[in-house]
Amino acid sequence: MTQIDPITGLEVVDHDSIDDAMQPEDTPELRALYEGFEAEHLMPLWTQIDDLMPMYPSPKAVPHVWKWSSLYPLARKSGDLVPVGRGGERRAIGLANPGLDGRAYISPTLWCAIQYLGPKETAPEHRHSQNAFRFVVEGEGVWTVVNGDPVRMSRGDFLLTPGWNFHGHHNETDQPMAWIDGLDIPFSQQNDVGFFEFGSERVTDYATPRYSRGERLWCHPGLRPLSGLQRTVSSPIGAYRWEYTDRALTEQLLLEEEGVPATVEQGHAAVRYVNPTTGGDVMPTIRAEFHRLRAGTETPTRHDVGSQVFQVFEGTGSVVLDGTERELERGDIFVVPSWVPWSLRAEGQFDLFAFSDAPIIERLHFNRTLIEGDNR
Amino acid sequence: MTQIDPITGLEVVDHDSIDDAMQPEDTPELRALYEGFEAEHLMPLWTQIDDLMPMYPSPKAVPHVWKWSSLYPLARKSGDLVPVGRGGERRAIGLANPGLDGRAYISPTLWCAIQYLGPKETAPEHRHSQNAFRFVVEGEGVWTVVNGDPVRMSRGDFLLTPGWNFHGHHNETDQPMAWIDGLDIPFSQQNDVGFFEFGSERVTDYATPRYSRGERLWCHPGLRPLSGLQRTVSSPIGAYRWEYTDRALTEQLLLEEEGVPATVEQGHAAVRYVNPTTGGDVMPTIRAEFHRLRAGTETPTRHDVGSQVFQVFEGTGSVVLDGTERELERGDIFVVPSWVPWSLRAEGQFDLFAFSDAPIIERLHFNRTLIEGDNR
Amino acid sequence: MTQIDPITGLEVVDHDSIDDAMQPEDTPELRALYEGFEAEHLMPLWTQIDDLMPMYPSPKAVPHVWKWSSLYPLARKSGDLVPVGRGGERRAIGLANPGLDGRAYISPTLWCAIQYLGPKETAPEHRHSQNAFRFVVEGEGVWTVVNGDPVRMSRGDFLLTPGWNFHGHHNETDQPMAWIDGLDIPFSQQNDVGFFEFGSERVTDYATPRYSRGERLWCHPGLRPLSGLQRTVSSPIGAYRWEYTDRALTEQLLLEEEGVPATVEQGHAAVRYVNPTTGGDVMPTIRAEFHRLRAGTETPTRHDVGSQVFQVFEGTGSVVLDGTERELERGDIFVVPSWVPWSLRAEGQFDLFAFSDAPIIERLHFNRTLIEGDNR
Amino acid sequence: MTQIDPITGLEVVDHDSIDDAMQPEDTPELRALYEGFEAEHLMPLWTQIDDLMPMYPSPKAVPHVWKWSSLYPLARKSGDLVPVGRGGERRAIGLANPGLDGRAYISPTLWCAIQYLGPKETAPEHRHSQNAFRFVVEGEGVWTVVNGDPVRMSRGDFLLTPGWNFHGHHNETDQPMAWIDGLDIPFSQQNDVGFFEFGSERVTDYATPRYSRGERLWCHPGLRPLSGLQRTVSSPIGAYRWEYTDRALTEQLLLEEEGVPATVEQGHAAVRYVNPTTGGDVMPTIRAEFHRLRAGTETPTRHDVGSQVFQVFEGTGSVVLDGTERELERGDIFVVPSWVPWSLRAEGQFDLFAFSDAPIIERLHFNRTLIEGDNR
Repeated sequence: MTQIDPITGLEVVDHDSIDDAMQPEDTPELRALYEGFEAEHLMPLWTQIDDLMPMYPSPKAVPHVWKWSSLYPLARKSGDLVPVGRGGERRAIGLANPGLDGRAYISPTLWCAIQYLGPKETAPEHRHSQNAFRFVVEGEGVWTVVNGDPVRMSRGDFLLTPGWNFHGHHNETDQPMAWIDGLDIPFSQQNDVGFFEFGSERVTDYATPRYSRGERLWCHPGLRPLSGLQRTVSSPIGAYRWEYTDRALTEQLLLEEEGVPATVEQGHAAVRYVNPTTGGDVMPTIRAEFHRLRAGTETPTRHDVGSQVFQVFEGTGSVVLDGTERELERGDIFVVPSWVPWSLRAEGQFDLFAFSDAPIIERLHFNRTLIEGDNR
Repeated sequence: MTQIDPITGLEVVDHDSIDDAMQPEDTPELRALYEGFEAEHLMPLWTQIDDLMPMYPSPKAVPHVWKWSSLYPLARKSGDLVPVGRGGERRAIGLANPGLDGRAYISPTLWCAIQYLGPKETAPEHRHSQNAFRFVVEGEGVWTVVNGDPVRMSRGDFLLTPGWNFHGHHNETDQPMAWIDGLDIPFSQQNDVGFFEFGSERVTDYATPRYSRGERLWCHPGLRPLSGLQRTVSSPIGAYRWEYTDRALTEQLLLEEEGVPATVEQGHAAVRYVNPTTGGDVMPTIRAEFHRLRAGTETPTRHDVGSQVFQVFEGTGSVVLDGTERELERGDIFVVPSWVPWSLRAEGQFDLFAFSDAPIIERLHFNRTLIEGDNR
Repeated sequence: MTQIDPITGLEVVDHDSIDDAMQPEDTPELRALYEGFEAEHLMPLWTQIDDLMPMYPSPKAVPHVWKWSSLYPLARKSGDLVPVGRGGERRAIGLANPGLDGRAYISPTLWCAIQYLGPKETAPEHRHSQNAFRFVVEGEGVWTVVNGDPVRMSRGDFLLTPGWNFHGHHNETDQPMAWIDGLDIPFSQQNDVGFFEFGSERVTDYATPRYSRGERLWCHPGLRPLSGLQRTVSSPIGAYRWEYTDRALTEQLLLEEEGVPATVEQGHAAVRYVNPTTGGDVMPTIRAEFHRLRAGTETPTRHDVGSQVFQVFEGTGSVVLDGTERELERGDIFVVPSWVPWSLRAEGQFDLFAFSDAPIIERLHFNRTLIEGDNR
Repeated sequence: MTQIDPITGLEVVDHDSIDDAMQPEDTPELRALYEGFEAEHLMPLWTQIDDLMPMYPSPKAVPHVWKWSSLYPLARKSGDLVPVGRGGERRAIGLANPGLDGRAYISPTLWCAIQYLGPKETAPEHRHSQNAFRFVVEGEGVWTVVNGDPVRMSRGDFLLTPGWNFHGHHNETDQPMAWIDGLDIPFSQQNDVGFFEFGSERVTDYATPRYSRGERLWCHPGLRPLSGLQRTVSSPIGAYRWEYTDRALTEQLLLEEEGVPATVEQGHAAVRYVNPTTGGDVMPTIRAEFHRLRAGTETPTRHDVGSQVFQVFEGTGSVVLDGTERELERGDIFVVPSWVPWSLRAEGQFDLFAFSDAPIIERLHFNRTLIEGDNR
């Protein structure tokens, strides 16, 4: 693939096409030098610069689709065989990117798992530096208790557990429930930033209110309680309800029909979940969005620095990942590693939840995007 | 009044109690010097420092209450006698602080007026650097058209017209309607920052939608459209609806009853209207809030740097301004000049809209507050 | 003067050229209405909108030049006749804008005074909310003691006393010394934000070090002490020395000669004094800069929102203020009120110190600039 | 080691001491489940949570000291055997942390290398997303040309090449020169954010000025050119000269002697290199500082989240890394992985250059520090 520099617009000259003036002759002296390096825990740049500093992001992670029709039965089966409780902490099954050496990383920065809680079960409380969210593609009946505030989980809801907040879950019903978890575990593990602390073995409040205290304080559009005027690192909202997300997307498409600029691009409505104290991302490491494509819409092919994960919430369509089209159905999850070209195609109306490591990339100023065919 | 320094906690020594070592003897030479000053447009500090640099804010503006029962009939009468239209622009009657030399300033920074629009009338479009809002204490039937977006005005709504947005109003009904306007006209005039431009003599869109386009894009709690990811100087929300404000306050008082920290202080619920792109004030010069006191609540006596204006929305109670208690009813408006001690007392449930110049004061780091009896 | 809107580029239609549809017939009923307004402390907008909301900034302040050759002798004379000390606090003589009703305001926001301290005199310590600086056009021998840190004052130095820092001055020598003071006294007085506190009658430290402690900690380019990592509201640097200012300007002109972009515009070098903890203005209300024009340079005619004051430091030239050219010599001070067109002309090399209220204007987003002949 | 939670102050309960309620019985059904996981690229959390989410940071990277007396001869030898030029790009030898599986990473985020340039050699120009700096422990005679601006490199200087700036080096002299490079290559590689572009094979300007253009514009304390008022992502200063660093540290210790708070702690002076447009770190991913300990000073034992690298610039002393003391001499380099306890001991006056990934850690809000014996 010829690579065009997104900033200069010029063709990229690859390392491989360069005459390497620096590869020295293999002599006994050179071997002695290299042995000296090894003895002193040194490694020359000139033998590995292609790998260390590629011309453009060349992730080991690969694009991949996990089918909900395969995931869910395995989760249910683990519900039969594996108890939930202290020690293992969560009946969560991580999606392991096939390119990442058997680690449970969906990308170098992100963890994504399906979590399953059987009837009347409780997952014990703990807290950790890692930032976490949950998104519910189906079901209801579980409350997650975050720092003592019980938060109902229902289809379409996006739920937050920012770093260092105690949290546990319990299922009030006679039905099991599954959802996806997203965390920054790989980033945290790679960079050695994580702390963990055990909490109560039972959740600290078994109440089952329709709305959590955080929502009751914070979910009034354009309003802020005077008791909460500080900027907080993460959002104080525990649950972003489907009813609001759905309404926001519906309005964007209606406005578009009325000729008002409201969508990202023709036929493509989208919202970002934000921290109301700043207007920015919900947590310092994870961005979350919801996208709705009108039937028949195709998005332009994009390359983005950073990794992104999508889950189909409703509808059918497909994703083109690095030139290969994959059909998608409700619940299917796919990952787009850094700079891999991707686009979406909607057969009927197509609803997708999305999360990414964009706050990491942007705060460190590594963000770049190339939209093919875009001459802006 | 003995003044206690809010930072040091020590008694303030006043200029007047100081032996003035600098007042020179009145000699012909001194008179010649002072004449020389005058000829050269100079004025010595030593003769006027008490006035220029008082020990604590000593506003010329005075605390004052305007009764809605007097205001409204005068506004209605002006509806009979004064046409609305190009030139005068608005049938708005400014509240003139009795201490401010006959200027239509409610405080050194703020303008507050009652505006009146008769049946089927239109106020023509214009724009200006001055930031403006409206608050509706009663009535409905007018739409304000802001940059082409028609915004319904109804009781309890708070409506924005940030600087340099074209806007006009029209009354769709057979009933007149009145509301209050708040602007930074005095600040703008004192500091010579204002521009003004005439627009269309008729509003550019006579549609009467229930919700404006800005609301449809922006009023979904915790969500932001991907088509609007920039931080904007002022809020993109044209109308903050009463239904949300009321619900937010109701929830704060319910949470307080449940033992959850949610109110500013016992029995005192309050929200601030904010710009969802930042979490900060709606406009760069004006803060707006809504306060609800539970029956029987008395707030502690406060001194704040900057000027504040309140309008009673519902209920009865009183305000103590610099030691004097004044009864308040629906629609009554009062001003608290800088550093004047004030507290509120609620007879029944007591709802008040409030606005102030706090963003000016805070952005320039002049903010201080002294709460009497508060040893924090 | 035909006014062109700097944003739209269109000719501005003035209030006066508008047929005023709103001026009602003068009837007994109308007079009764207006009497009702007066009784209730109300004033209609429609009779005064031209004054309250002009088409573009129409300051009462006028452009004016004060000659150092007149100022200095009056200051010296006041040194003979007026003692310095507690009560009057400072032997400072304010420049009173001829348009501002006999108040000692050089502009609606800014105070500028010449201060004079005789041999061996001490000006007592105090502190106030008002932000202050000093600039030294000639002389040396005084130390200003800011929060206990003695700061030498010498020709070309720019010295800070941010709000609420104790400060006093003393003259170590047998020669008098004069300098200019700049403060936000008018802004503070108009908006009722000022506090004042007396301190020691003698300065708290009579040491006369060459460099203050603040300079020794902070004046190392690109370096910050680990003991001072917080962002502070105002700069921690007490003195910005002439040697650095001069070198910075010299380098800019040399770089320009070498073809490197370094100056504001051809022949015009300029630096802004900044707070090293933020890179922004030295104090929240006052911007300070130093400008150097190469001989023969003329700057384009500008209109800026906000008020600016300049003092000639060295060289000769002129300023064109609202179309009128005024010759300038060392020490001369002139004010440019808001939106008044101005440009500079350098006869020889021309050095000017400048200060303004730009941080107020910019933080509140009222800033606009129109450069004549500039079609950007 | 008993671990105390730095926030709660309580003893940390480890995963290992917990009765694991979740480890299911090893049955054929369970094995079938686990095979199902593998087939679908899934991995359960409950078998690996100890590794993924440790109780506190448990880096694979180990503390290690590289001796300059070993490093430098190997670099010199590579100068004899390995040509410098296009392809390999730099004669740089990376310090490979013994815990990091043979990759040339000194920590999970940072790269540190010794770079060697022989007499009259040129390292060709290129640019990359990775942020880079150089620090010179000895020697002189090389100029690094950054975006066309030649920057002299001399002992004690800290030099910047922020991301996506073209840069090359050339040695003007008949003597070789070596220095250390620091980059965010590991972070960039792990997270797939890097772009690379070849530039000129010869540097674009062979001039050898004493001060670069960036220094001439920007290195005037407290001053900013009006031609450069934007906040930039990285510092515009290409070289932070030793003379300034040395003077800043000297002043801190003198001020400490005079009883003025100026040092980080008793006997420990330190400066941070900063971006003058913001007052913050020089680049978005790398912090750089210089520390000077008075003879005999011992710093308290600290644990910090994130990884840090030090190079001894002058003097002798030791570092205690995870309880083990290591002697240090001029040029020695050591790494402190995340949360590893460390302290410094100065025999004579002890000067150390330091860099870290703190901007990454802080911008993502993972920063924590525990100072042993500190009850603040």
